[in-house]
Amino acid sequence: MKEMNFLALAGGVGGAKLTDGLVRAVGAEQVTVIVNTADDFTLYGLHISPDVDTVMYTLAGVANSETGWGLADDTWENFGMFERYGSAPWFRLGDRDLATHLLRTEMMSGGATLSEVTRRLARRLKVPTLILPMSNDPVHTLIDTDKGALPFQEYFVKYHWQPIVRGLIYEGAAEAEPSPSVLRRIETADTIVICPSNPYLSIDPILALHSIHDALLNATAPIIAVTPIIGGEAVKGPAAKLMKELGVEPSAVEVARHYADFINGFVLDERDAGLRQAIEAMGVGVLVTDTLMTSSDDRARLACEIVTFADQLRPEKLGGCLLDQPKPSGSPQ
Amino acid sequence: MKEMNFLALAGGVGGAKLTDGLVRAVGAEQVTVIVNTADDFTLYGLHISPDVDTVMYTLAGVANSETGWGLADDTWENFGMFERYGSAPWFRLGDRDLATHLLRTEMMSGGATLSEVTRRLARRLKVPTLILPMSNDPVHTLIDTDKGALPFQEYFVKYHWQPIVRGLIYEGAAEAEPSPSVLRRIETADTIVICPSNPYLSIDPILALHSIHDALLNATAPIIAVTPIIGGEAVKGPAAKLMKELGVEPSAVEVARHYADFINGFVLDERDAGLRQAIEAMGVGVLVTDTLMTSSDDRARLACEIVTFADQLRPEKLGGCLLDQPKPSGSPQ
Repeated sequence: MKEMNFLALAGGVGGAKLTDGLVRAVGAEQVTVIVNTADDFTLYGLHISPDVDTVMYTLAGVANSETGWGLADDTWENFGMFERYGSAPWFRLGDRDLATHLLRTEMMSGGATLSEVTRRLARRLKVPTLILPMSNDPVHTLIDTDKGALPFQEYFVKYHWQPIVRGLIYEGAAEAEPSPSVLRRIETADTIVICPSNPYLSIDPILALHSIHDALLNATAPIIAVTPIIGGEAVKGPAAKLMKELGVEPSAVEVARHYADFINGFVLDERDAGLRQAIEAMGVGVLVTDTLMTSSDDRARLACEIVTFADQLRPEKLGGCLLDQPKPSGSPQ
Repeated sequence: MKEMNFLALAGGVGGAKLTDGLVRAVGAEQVTVIVNTADDFTLYGLHISPDVDTVMYTLAGVANSETGWGLADDTWENFGMFERYGSAPWFRLGDRDLATHLLRTEMMSGGATLSEVTRRLARRLKVPTLILPMSNDPVHTLIDTDKGALPFQEYFVKYHWQPIVRGLIYEGAAEAEPSPSVLRRIETADTIVICPSNPYLSIDPILALHSIHDALLNATAPIIAVTPIIGGEAVKGPAAKLMKELGVEPSAVEVARHYADFINGFVLDERDAGLRQAIEAMGVGVLVTDTLMTSSDDRARLACEIVTFADQLRPEKLGGCLLDQPKPSGSPQ
């Protein structure tokens, strides 16, 4: 099989799951993932990079699949002691998870960049997939709400995404540089997948780096976005609520429209099959299938279908999925 | 009963136990403890102050009495994750203990001094006794050994105090200032107790601050040292081994001689009763008693005997121990 360069753009849980599926479908070393860092924040002086960690932990097979963040079977003794001190923060860090933040912060204090640190930590967790933080420069999503402008973690964790959103600001994005090799990976990718992450909170901060957006506009690879919206609802998290609050209909069609300037293909959930034509009308190929990734097998199956779909969106075939798979339940026309 | 000002000078375990005894004997608010900070070090960017923590945890009733450091019933999940990263340090920090270091480091990054932080943390753990780190300036014990010059924690924890000691350097002590109110507490104390801590590793770094040594020389209160050596052996730790390596006989007599320029009284263990006269010959009053603090009651009993002993070393009596106690097994002549 030919060497392939699959590139995923990802936020947290949904992005991590589909990246994991791609790794199973085509091999860990054929996949690169560019991860949102605009949710990064500091707690007790520790640099916390939630989406990078979710992707890294998921690919290492140690993620907490119930919560969607942190490590499986983590414990909360440290948090309990913070409570005893009367200083329990609104963000809970597990005892094992803390090791990641301590190591990262120490390495960064020593001068290493976030992408260098990520590469070292991933290697130690035996993750061969290249995980690229979108930028080593600080970018922070600020959410303008009826409770005022909130940093992402306050909006998401402290207020459980209940405030009404009026707008989003990706602070620092205009000045931030993509981390090394991000642009080259976009240029040389065979297939680019926009994971079913929140378009506004996870993918847009990546696109807010103008050189990344430009590179996607100029990419030769087919670019395929996977819907995070099924039947007008988000699979997980605030995507649908947020779209409504921003005056956009929460629908896969609007997600496709959001990405329409650079995508060639869109993966629509079979429950929304009726929306196919509206998306095709934008000049975007559509794959209709079951996009829910409940089990580990679901991830690999969806990824395999995307691999096959990508081959149908370009002149020459690159070869398919490593796994035996059922015929996709839908195929592009 | 008259207001009393008991002042203890302490290192880690032995100092913490006797300070705890004094608190039980005369009341938490009548006791102040000046604690060695020359063992402080940095791990993962966290400021770790082992002796301050041992004293604070002991007075809060949460110390791990088996290990002599850290918190009772702490867990090691964080350390396990460091092992998974292949980065397990030689110094193990418990999951709960980490909260102390994270909070301290955050407060110090915000500009608070070690003594301010210690006061805040102790208050939150409901410890009313004033715990004074000896200095807010960096002082570091360097141990010159056959393996080269080692920082204290490497000598003590990493090499389990096995290297042969040639000398000790209290780096920074000449320039360090005592932390606020240390000198005033020495001047106004009614009784000063040098706890049965390691003379070279725990008490000498405090005395290496010249203004503290001068204040002890000029103190009006009786100053009583408690032996950390029984029958030529250290109750705990490297004191006897270290004395031998420095060419000093490991004996309570030599400990008394070490402090002879400023102490008025010395508490000798009953197993060493035969050494009484050698110490009295230095012009130092001697209390012979059981100095081992195995149980919590032992701590209070020993402290009560010291309170009574102190009254015998000054012109006017200040009143005795709050607790009912047996008659001391020895008394000064």
